[in-house]
Parts: sequence; C-alpha cells; structure tokens
Amino acid sequence: KPIALTESENDEIDEQEPRTSTEGSSTLKTIIVVTPTYKRLTRIADFTRLANTLSHLLNLYWIVIEDGQETVPVVHKILERTHLNFTYMAHPSPPNYPNRGWYQRTMALKYIRENYTSFMRSQNGVVYFGDDDNAYDLRLFEEYIRNVKKIGMWGVGHVAGSLVESPRVSNQKVVGFDVEWSPDRYFAIDMAGFAVDLQLILESDAVFRSSCPSGTGALESCLLADLGLKREDVEPFGFEKKNDREVLVWHTKTLIPDIYEFRPSAWNWLFPKPPKTNGYFVEY
Amino acid sequence: KPIALTESENDEIDEQEPRTSTEGSSTLKTIIVVTPTYKRLTRIADFTRLANTLSHLLNLYWIVIEDGQETVPVVHKILERTHLNFTYMAHPSPPNYPNRGWYQRTMALKYIRENYTSFMRSQNGVVYFGDDDNAYDLRLFEEYIRNVKKIGMWGVGHVAGSLVESPRVSNQKVVGFDVEWSPDRYFAIDMAGFAVDLQLILESDAVFRSSCPSGTGALESCLLADLGLKREDVEPFGFEKKNDREVLVWHTKTLIPDIYEFRPSAWNWLFPKPPKTNGYFVEY
Repeated sequence: KPIALTESENDEIDEQEPRTSTEGSSTLKTIIVVTPTYKRLTRIADFTRLANTLSHLLNLYWIVIEDGQETVPVVHKILERTHLNFTYMAHPSPPNYPNRGWYQRTMALKYIRENYTSFMRSQNGVVYFGDDDNAYDLRLFEEYIRNVKKIGMWGVGHVAGSLVESPRVSNQKVVGFDVEWSPDRYFAIDMAGFAVDLQLILESDAVFRSSCPSGTGALESCLLADLGLKREDVEPFGFEKKNDREVLVWHTKTLIPDIYEFRPSAWNWLFPKPPKTNGYFVEY
Repeated sequence: KPIALTESENDEIDEQEPRTSTEGSSTLKTIIVVTPTYKRLTRIADFTRLANTLSHLLNLYWIVIEDGQETVPVVHKILERTHLNFTYMAHPSPPNYPNRGWYQRTMALKYIRENYTSFMRSQNGVVYFGDDDNAYDLRLFEEYIRNVKKIGMWGVGHVAGSLVESPRVSNQKVVGFDVEWSPDRYFAIDMAGFAVDLQLILESDAVFRSSCPSGTGALESCLLADLGLKREDVEPFGFEKKNDREVLVWHTKTLIPDIYEFRPSAWNWLFPKPPKTNGYFVEY
C-alpha cells in the first residue's frame, strides 16, 4: 500500500501555454513514464529539467515514486505546473534493498496494472523508465517510444563506461549488444534504452526482482526475460544510418555541488549549526 | 568579425506543437538569452536540456556563441528544432584569454548592439546570460526576467560554495549580498542571477573586460558598474516571503562521464586508437 498517494487529472488547458492536452489526440499511443526519485542536493534542479522536457509531450502519463516516507510538496508543485496528468506516490525502499529505484519501479508496475483503467481510455500505451537525472531529446519520445509495438531499443549515451551503449543490429534485427560492461547479459541494456508495450506489462506479473540469476546489474535483462521477450522480438530504433547515428538519451549525472559549509571540518564538528539558506527552501 | 555566422528566423508555426510564436505577442518584452558553448563530452546532452527549456517560451531570441573556429552542425540542428529565433556564431577565445565564455559573451553584446534591429521590432527587450549547463525553472523567465525594467536580481542555487547565493534585501532594496565567496564585490552575483534591460545595453559600450580592478572573479560586478548601475537601481525578485523562498535557477554542472577507453593506461598510450562509438556521432 502506498504511504502517500496523490493523483492529478489536469484536464484544463492553460490558454497562454498550450503545451499539453489529452483532448483530440486519442489516436496517439500514451507514453507512461516511470520516474523513481529521492531527496538530494541536486534533485529539484534535475527534476525541474525533466519536467521542462516531458511537458512538451502530448498523451503522456507521468508516474513518480518518491523513495521516502512521504511525497514532497515542492516536487508535487513541479508536477502540477507541467499540466501533465500524473500520479505521485511514496514507497520507501525496504531495509537493505539493493539498488536505488528498483523497488520504486516495481511499485509503479503494480500501480499501472491495478489502475491503468483510471488514467487511460484503452490499453494503447507504452511504458518507459525515465530517471530524473538523465538528459532526453524530445525525439526519443515522439519518434521512438511512441512507435514501440512490443519492445523497442536504442542507443544510450555515456552509460557504464561507454560513449554509447547500443544494440548491435543486423538486417533490422538485434543480434547482440555493443557495451563495455557485462556484455554477456541476454539483454545488455540500460533502463533508459528500452520501452515496453503496456499490453505486455498487463499480461504479466513480472517486476524488478530483488535478485536476479545473472547478478544485480542484470535486473533490466531479468525483467525483459520475465516478460517473455526474446532478442528477436526487439524493434531497434535509430539504426537507419551506418554512421553519425544520433544519441537521443544520455545517462547524465549532476555533480554534487561543493558547498563550503558541508566540508568536513573540526569547527563544524565542534559547533554544528544548520547551513545558511538565506531564507530559501533547499533540499539537503 | 565572426568566423561563421548563421541566422535563422523561424517564422513558421509547427501545427502539432504550438510551442513558440512571435506573432500576437508583441506586447511581451523580448528575452534575449546569451549562451556561450564549447565542445565537450556532455555538451550535446546539456544543450538539449536547455533547448527543451527555452523552447517553451514566447518572444525569446537565443544568441549562441561557439568557443571554436566554426559552428557545429549538431548544435545548429538542436537550435532549429526549438522553433525559436536564434543566431549561432563562432568566436574562438583569443590565446590565453581568461575564463571560458567571457570573450563569447562580449561578442554577443557587440552583436546585439549592431544587429538588434534585425531581430527585434522595438527596444523592448531584456538580456540574460544563460549558460548551457545550468538548470532553469520556467518561472525564472516568465515571472522574473520578462518583468525586469532596468536591472533585476534573484537567488541562484549551488553556486561558488553556497547552497544559495542571493541579494540581501531590506525594504525592497538590495543592501548587500549573502554569498560565501568574495562577498565584498560591489555586485556579488553570478552570471545566472541577473538580467539587464536592452536599452541599457544599447546606451553603453560596456563589455566583459579581459581584466577588472576587483579581480577576474568580479567580471559580472565590473560589467554592471560599467553599465552605470548602482545597488539602489536593482529590482529584487522572489523576496516576498521571509522563508521558503524559491530557487528558480541552479548553477548545475554535469559530471564528466567515466569512459573506460579514456582512462589513462599504458595500453592506450602504446596502441592508441579511436574510441568505440558504435556508429554514433559523439563529441569528445
């Protein structure tokens, strides 16, 4: 059961900024973006950038899961300002649960299965796991994710030691994966590199397991295998050109800022006091 | 003289995404955003996020200056996809010129003075220096920058060792600056923390000097002083509340990704070869 659950159905259209609307676009496949998030110094900045990106898109439903005891008002307000339809809920990770975000994505999959009829008119949807610190080209959503029929895959920039991790494609079929790290995974792909048809999610009870026979780094591969997918099912996107292909998503990380007052010092240890925020709201 | 100069006047409106238009909004003050940029591993990701943010805004003119011998096609394409009006030009920094971006911003100020009549209908504008790696809340532009009459200032998150750098405001007047680093500057403010009315830029030939009596870290302060501004001229934004004020811009930095092939090693030194890009375009 979620600790806190907020649902929003923003049906009104902002006259000044006609950015999003679910009206008049019922033929478009709905993109369900699943974003785990957690309190940290750079979270509001990261989340704001992702909101600025997603709020360009039509027919997008955003599921945001706080790794914490409760939802955070400032995050809720960012979601409201997007004019997107969304669910924001809190599911703290169980003690000693491995890998940040896994439990939250699992809760999102369960939420989708139990509630999709409340936020969708049909099963014409696709699920994408979009973390809040990555960088996204809008074409990833408009040209790739929206057109996934069963399971789509594409290259991801700057992930796991590679300039680009990508499926290896031959005759429009995925025949392997060009990655530096753990290339022998059956689906050697990062969370940001695939999207799955909603129907497939609904027909299965697969979730991110707390462990996976191929190791904790292979949970993506385990999920896709649990969904009954094979390499030959994969639709590769963006491989039309042999060279100068385009990266449309990057596994960016925001540097933790060097705040002077947070530097370890004997002075801070002897005379601890809250850091200066000049009256501003700051997460830390 | 610019080495390469590209001007675009995207007057057509994309029917599917009515995100920007210069028509029917002539009473809105035009925001001129000046962005120096340069080739680096994370540039396309950073620039894509900034484009996603700025493309929400009406009446915005984007001046982008490449620190390099020529403009970069993939950056040009990102600018075109925003449907914003823009100028993209290349001005490589002179040898040994201090502080990245200073020369490019100076070239932008000169460009604005010589060309504003070609991209604006009146002098009803405001100039903002928006770097491509920062994170921006849309309200910074809509509620703060657009409403600047002469010189506006506001808090900036995660800059120069502070959680928030901000003007110190008393009776709606700026009486000092709450910053950790170099607080005795006359205007102790980061580039992201102010915007200046276009008229003021046009009436002066002030640029970012290659040196400044108060030190290289005080170039912002020198520019504002050169524009003839005093602390009492400053309009502070966002100080209505005593507490829980909102940060609308963060001085974020993107972590340089750890690409295995770029790690120093005897093997790479003995047998150098280009890193694997899997056929993708990658800046490095």
